[in-house]
Amino acid sequence: MMAEQKWEDFYCDEVLTGKTQVEKVLETEHSLAFYHTRPYYEVHIIVIPKKHILSFLAVTIEETDIMVDVLQVIRQVAAKLENEHGACTISTNIGSYQSNKHMHWHVHYGARIRDEQGRLLNDQQAK
Amino acid sequence: MMAEQKWEDFYCDEVLTGKTQVEKVLETEHSLAFYHTRPYYEVHIIVIPKKHILSFLAVTIEETDIMVDVLQVIRQVAAKLENEHGACTISTNIGSYQSNKHMHWHVHYGARIRDEQGRLLNDQQAK
Repeated sequence: MMAEQKWEDFYCDEVLTGKTQVEKVLETEHSLAFYHTRPYYEVHIIVIPKKHILSFLAVTIEETDIMVDVLQVIRQVAAKLENEHGACTISTNIGSYQSNKHMHWHVHYGARIRDEQGRLLNDQQAK
Repeated sequence: MMAEQKWEDFYCDEVLTGKTQVEKVLETEHSLAFYHTRPYYEVHIIVIPKKHILSFLAVTIEETDIMVDVLQVIRQVAAKLENEHGACTISTNIGSYQSNKHMHWHVHYGARIRDEQGRLLNDQQAK
């Protein structure tokens, strides 16, 4: 397997341009929710603002409407997972924990299927 | 060690009443941030609304001001951890993943120190 290419901003460069096709879950004027292209959990959905915003800590007063829209999309996606699976976790990373420098929220359910390096865990490789 | 007592709402019953003393990080009119009494990570802060709200999915339009305040406190706590440690994760659980039925957000940095059952991991027990 080739080494995984790293983007500074995979969402602006690949997802929002359409260069990398994603399976959309929900789309609004300001936000996009889609299945993670390399999921870390059995069900793993990413929610991003279409505008480039570095992180949750970087959102400005002028971007409040965008943030509200992102949060509403997160709620809808989380409600979908709760309805289908009974549970989910919502999370976002800050600073050195944030690999991709475009604010993104994870909404996920089920067991972890990749390690920190992005390798599929053993029981998944065997499937 | 005695079995850990479980509360339906530890925050209303114990923390907000003051029955269980917590180390506060930040307090506003609507929100409280404090160090987790049984941390799952090396640095583990909890942010809650003072009003009883079941979960992030249960927030009503009338509770928008409270939610905005909670999110601002989360941002301040996350900025503090980024400043001190360079990173953090912000998360909340929904449905069966949410053990305590009062909305709470985790802001944490560092290695995991407890398992899912709340037991300290081996290298921590040895310390």
